[in-house]
Amino acid sequence: MFQVDINCDLGESFGRYKLGEQEEILKYVTSANIACGFHSGDPTVMRETVKMAIANGVKIGAHPGLPDLNGFGRREMAITPQQGYDMVVYQIGALQGFLSTFNEKMQHVKPHGALYNMAAKDPKLAEAIAQAVYDVSPSLILFGLSGSELTKAGEKLGLQTAHEVFADRTYQADGSLTSRSQSDALITDQEQSVAQVVKMVAEGKVVSQQNTEVSLRADTICIHGDGEHALDFAKYINERLAKNNIKVSAICNWEA
Amino acid sequence: MFQVDINCDLGESFGRYKLGEQEEILKYVTSANIACGFHSGDPTVMRETVKMAIANGVKIGAHPGLPDLNGFGRREMAITPQQGYDMVVYQIGALQGFLSTFNEKMQHVKPHGALYNMAAKDPKLAEAIAQAVYDVSPSLILFGLSGSELTKAGEKLGLQTAHEVFADRTYQADGSLTSRSQSDALITDQEQSVAQVVKMVAEGKVVSQQNTEVSLRADTICIHGDGEHALDFAKYINERLAKNNIKVSAICNWEA
Amino acid sequence: MFQVDINCDLGESFGRYKLGEQEEILKYVTSANIACGFHSGDPTVMRETVKMAIANGVKIGAHPGLPDLNGFGRREMAITPQQGYDMVVYQIGALQGFLSTFNEKMQHVKPHGALYNMAAKDPKLAEAIAQAVYDVSPSLILFGLSGSELTKAGEKLGLQTAHEVFADRTYQADGSLTSRSQSDALITDQEQSVAQVVKMVAEGKVVSQQNTEVSLRADTICIHGDGEHALDFAKYINERLAKNNIKVSAICNWEA
Amino acid sequence: MFQVDINCDLGESFGRYKLGEQEEILKYVTSANIACGFHSGDPTVMRETVKMAIANGVKIGAHPGLPDLNGFGRREMAITPQQGYDMVVYQIGALQGFLSTFNEKMQHVKPHGALYNMAAKDPKLAEAIAQAVYDVSPSLILFGLSGSELTKAGEKLGLQTAHEVFADRTYQADGSLTSRSQSDALITDQEQSVAQVVKMVAEGKVVSQQNTEVSLRADTICIHGDGEHALDFAKYINERLAKNNIKVSAICNWEA
Repeated sequence: MFQVDINCDLGESFGRYKLGEQEEILKYVTSANIACGFHSGDPTVMRETVKMAIANGVKIGAHPGLPDLNGFGRREMAITPQQGYDMVVYQIGALQGFLSTFNEKMQHVKPHGALYNMAAKDPKLAEAIAQAVYDVSPSLILFGLSGSELTKAGEKLGLQTAHEVFADRTYQADGSLTSRSQSDALITDQEQSVAQVVKMVAEGKVVSQQNTEVSLRADTICIHGDGEHALDFAKYINERLAKNNIKVSAICNWEA
Repeated sequence: MFQVDINCDLGESFGRYKLGEQEEILKYVTSANIACGFHSGDPTVMRETVKMAIANGVKIGAHPGLPDLNGFGRREMAITPQQGYDMVVYQIGALQGFLSTFNEKMQHVKPHGALYNMAAKDPKLAEAIAQAVYDVSPSLILFGLSGSELTKAGEKLGLQTAHEVFADRTYQADGSLTSRSQSDALITDQEQSVAQVVKMVAEGKVVSQQNTEVSLRADTICIHGDGEHALDFAKYINERLAKNNIKVSAICNWEA
Repeated sequence: MFQVDINCDLGESFGRYKLGEQEEILKYVTSANIACGFHSGDPTVMRETVKMAIANGVKIGAHPGLPDLNGFGRREMAITPQQGYDMVVYQIGALQGFLSTFNEKMQHVKPHGALYNMAAKDPKLAEAIAQAVYDVSPSLILFGLSGSELTKAGEKLGLQTAHEVFADRTYQADGSLTSRSQSDALITDQEQSVAQVVKMVAEGKVVSQQNTEVSLRADTICIHGDGEHALDFAKYINERLAKNNIKVSAICNWEA
Repeated sequence: MFQVDINCDLGESFGRYKLGEQEEILKYVTSANIACGFHSGDPTVMRETVKMAIANGVKIGAHPGLPDLNGFGRREMAITPQQGYDMVVYQIGALQGFLSTFNEKMQHVKPHGALYNMAAKDPKLAEAIAQAVYDVSPSLILFGLSGSELTKAGEKLGLQTAHEVFADRTYQADGSLTSRSQSDALITDQEQSVAQVVKMVAEGKVVSQQNTEVSLRADTICIHGDGEHALDFAKYINERLAKNNIKVSAICNWEA
């Protein structure tokens, strides 16, 4: 039997600004990455999102981002590894504050947006972030792009890692994601998207845009909480995984 | 034998902006209130300050403030009690992140500036803040203005509280601090300042501006880390307390 | 013949966060109050909103707010009059930057949210804000709550003012708005709302919640750009004003 | 007779945080680049700095930076050219607001820190920034690194430009500044620094670290307002330029 985690970014609202249909999507995911106030999220949103995730039995992780609310943490910034370490410690801690008020344990940490992408490629930043996670608590699970510098850095430290794959993104022959600047970066066909996920989880392989089979580890699937068809897709992928005998379960609950 | 804690606000720098002579003042205080990024402080400053405090054997507390960096958290804001709760949980958590990386326990929480003043007078905000501290961890000590709504709210919840007194501020007949808008708000004479402190700790009394003796509890004395004579005064008050047989000790280390 | 201006807050989006149906509402208003980046809005949103307003022939004003994005500028802050002056000058200037790139003249300034409310009641803050507007340009029109300290301060300086009334808010016998904390603060019936507006413009009177007739000046009506029925109401109020022979026109275009 | 402008970054304080000895340095410079609130500066600091510059007869320019107060605008960010355009328009406008209150004309615009460096190398960002300056007012002078993409883009649009050179930085054979990551990036010897400046202004040449003579245009010299020897150096360079018959004058006052 195969098992896989499904994760989703949550808590991305800020003050009067609302994003995502949080309550609904929580029924279809097993891990929630909760924004920590740097690229989105605020203390009140964080508390409400933590509460909602717990009510739905969804495991919680910190989703630290760059200090760039206006750019939603999606613009790369030339931070030093030390600054990366510090901002990750800060944001994990802030979310842990809310988890403490609910006596809930944090499951994982997944960097957001440009921080995620930078940490996938830059070994020094990856090491700094992995170290930050480890130093706050060695029992945290580090989520990162499958086969990236970030998961590598985590494993080197002895952290449990979750290799993340994307349902709606295409892959290159070297295992990297097709850049969003390319026209074929996104998979818009739901059927094709689900087929890719099933293959990644069950066979550990993905067919690249160059039509080669690439090996990759697929511990957790990232799905979106906003957008027109987010809920439909979330529902559908759960059904299809079930039909393919793949158990959807939060990574901390996996059977050995 | 009497005992008293001496606390100081620290970690108030931000990026390129530096405030205070942190390394020196740490030799003369027993508790450090570390800014958490809302009114001052940033992740890097927080890590460095935590490290320095530990190296000096000074106990650490969170110093949460209003989200007003430009006003240094000194301008009152019409936040709701729920927002007060949320921003205190967030900031305690963020600092706890850094303490975790040093395997250090947090001793206390002391609100900053306008949040401190508002919580001293407003019972609902006081309750919300005390509840936030309690919910994150009931073993945290709540620092608040002596005899204020904040210490009252903490005690009602069963939190240990530290009643704070000021060395350089005068008091009114009702036990409140003389408003800074009054010309006699500050004690500038070092001798008078120390005498007031000794009386407060040893006798539990202060002479008000109306020349009456007012009872108050003095668990911890607030001194400043910046300003021209900060270090001199810090040194001097330690000497004088020693001469008066008052032991200066972090509140968590007090002998029963 | 009567004439009245209809104004609406616009440009309240921020980065990825979107608010309001701007393009549609612009067809039904004559003056746009554009957020300037303190309580909402960002440089890109400002440019786009200015462009859209010009394309619709809507006159443009600055909508300066308190530096509180998370609270959307709705939480009162204890700023000094000098700080109020400075933040208003800054925000008018910032918007003027974009108007300059389109060779467009700014018509007016209307403070936002808590700044608006504080300036309505506090003569010193009102004077500081009016002075800021005057100092940037004496030809700017100052929008403020009808009969408030703000319009008074503007008139004292010789600024043209626009007394603002609200279509969906009830009034008290003293001419003030019923506080939003009261259950009868809002008028939800569209018909009643329009009738109140017509009476205010044509007769200069409003019926208070105490059932008395109160005199007030109604130069400009504030309507909302978001909410379920915003567009319907905007359309409807234009029709009804036309039927009552009241010309809807930007205040700078009024006939003498 | 030769003439040169001396510029200095000013208004870099923020709230309680103070930077630089502004009042003193203003005696030795002819152009002030005033921070506009994104990387440093706030509305109150801006007003005070504008006032001080005018009192000293120093010409004023906007010093727009990246929205990164914590990094002091020194960390490169992956902004789009359109975002660069928008943030420059915004910041020029904000400063112009204060100049309007003093009936003072803005002389120039000089991007700050990482924005300056990015605009020196990236033609698209350079064009966007030059266009922003031009669109706000074609009479503004654009300050940029001598021979950079930014001055090139400004000249293409017909803007007057000021080619900036550095007194305390060494140059490479290709005319670029030696990277700060190199050990020989800075000139610490005051004499050598002044000699380099005199040669750049009088001969239009600099001796590179590769010991070649490189041609460059030197319209304005950047000096620092903070640091231990800032004032001494500012004074000294004025004396030495005078001795070499080089007139120090704001660029807008140059004789044809």
